[in-house]
Amino acid sequence: MNDQPIGVFDSGVGGLTVLKALAGELPGEQFIYLGDTARLPYGTKSAETVARYALQAAEALSEYGIKAMVVACNTASAASLPAIRDRMEGMPVIGVIEPGAEAACRVSRSGHIAVIGTEGTVRGGAYQEAIHRLRPDARVSARSTQLFVALAEEGMHEGPIAVSVARHYLDALFEPTGAAASSAFASGAASGATGAARGTIPDTLVLGCTHFPMLAGAIRAAVGPTIRMVDSAATTAKAVSERLGANLRASPGRKTGVRFLATDSPERFARVGSRFLGQTLAATDVELVDL
Amino acid sequence: MNDQPIGVFDSGVGGLTVLKALAGELPGEQFIYLGDTARLPYGTKSAETVARYALQAAEALSEYGIKAMVVACNTASAASLPAIRDRMEGMPVIGVIEPGAEAACRVSRSGHIAVIGTEGTVRGGAYQEAIHRLRPDARVSARSTQLFVALAEEGMHEGPIAVSVARHYLDALFEPTGAAASSAFASGAASGATGAARGTIPDTLVLGCTHFPMLAGAIRAAVGPTIRMVDSAATTAKAVSERLGANLRASPGRKTGVRFLATDSPERFARVGSRFLGQTLAATDVELVDL
Repeated sequence: MNDQPIGVFDSGVGGLTVLKALAGELPGEQFIYLGDTARLPYGTKSAETVARYALQAAEALSEYGIKAMVVACNTASAASLPAIRDRMEGMPVIGVIEPGAEAACRVSRSGHIAVIGTEGTVRGGAYQEAIHRLRPDARVSARSTQLFVALAEEGMHEGPIAVSVARHYLDALFEPTGAAASSAFASGAASGATGAARGTIPDTLVLGCTHFPMLAGAIRAAVGPTIRMVDSAATTAKAVSERLGANLRASPGRKTGVRFLATDSPERFARVGSRFLGQTLAATDVELVDL
Repeated sequence: MNDQPIGVFDSGVGGLTVLKALAGELPGEQFIYLGDTARLPYGTKSAETVARYALQAAEALSEYGIKAMVVACNTASAASLPAIRDRMEGMPVIGVIEPGAEAACRVSRSGHIAVIGTEGTVRGGAYQEAIHRLRPDARVSARSTQLFVALAEEGMHEGPIAVSVARHYLDALFEPTGAAASSAFASGAASGATGAARGTIPDTLVLGCTHFPMLAGAIRAAVGPTIRMVDSAATTAKAVSERLGANLRASPGRKTGVRFLATDSPERFARVGSRFLGQTLAATDVELVDL
């Protein structure tokens, strides 16, 4: 048994969707959530800058006596997971890319998988690589859907505007011909498409950013009812549960607890974060920390 | 005569709309533009964090031997102009809020002025104060239109989605009754409405963010043909020209020059910035600097 907290790190409030899944999967655990709101978003920044920020944040979080760390931000997982693992010396460090890729490979029948994420996540190619490691013949069509982040933060994740934006990004990804799919890549920020199943449409869509589950309804309206959607929050929570052997579990009967840290504006963290967490946070629930 | 460069500081690429206006207004001058792209956007961050970042950037820019500084970012102007002026000891430092407020007061007939900006600019109330200083009986209706920033950065500033987003934000601001206008304030991030002309609709709209001129067409489609639109880029360029007395002007016959500095990703600065500047930049035109 180990009653130390689990650290959850994100660039801002998006990772609260992962925290929510973790709290559901691991009752009785204590969590410390750190949102690097002073430097968000990570999704439009270079891999070098994201890695520098993420390492600083991970080190700050490790000083709270945590027993494991979850890198909830897809962009940070893509840019810096190996570096964070090196620095944390033996502590379990779980990112969101590998669990998401595993889930996509498991549910896809055709092997043609679409991935959407921030500019940085898509450009870095981490999902594409993780999927190909597990399923070398998979075809991966990837596209940056950067505006989804702002829509979710602004509370505009539902309704006709959200659906129009989803169609703007996704229509070309889910067109039936290989040629049309190629044109989607050219207009996206970056992409990779390799492997089998050319000329098909993807049967699976990975929501490769913690903000995107907020837009699940609009995305579903754009892609139709048959596409399998993979939300890495749920799959990451299961992966964390598997990595916590008996010696790292909380004692039975404990009440789940969460402590919230942010590097800027507790008021905005609480206001915007409440939507992502699905429960009301007050600014006084959030501690301001300096990295 | 003074052939030292004019420093232009912005949180990212939005200030390139101001740089473009400056280069048009002040031919023969040398400009050094610094975009703090590693920490953008400023618009969703607290005033304290914005002021800290802006002061660091202003100090870095001052080391390039500049003769005057333009704070092109509305959020930074709102949060930190007095502090930057203090630190720059006698160097002319020109922000974008006062020129925008002056232009709005000049063109508004009714005295009812609408201001749109980032969360931080609207919440801080700097436009509202600047307008009331010049025209104490003015009524100011202010609203944060945060998604405009992401639309402009993503190249989605035109077309039906941009117009729908503009209507989403602006319809309530430009409704004819006082009651409806009040409901617009409640749904915005922050607002102030004081002074004369209650129950009227604004006759003037201040584009209080450097990103918003990119959306001028969509905003015009939403507000109709009669509203006067004030873009602070042009008015700021005129204000800078007035502040540069003969002793601070460039020698006649010099060729205008611009040097671009960014704190992250020259590639993205060039790609997204080209749209704002209206001419093609290459990544190799942009120097990476560390603050």
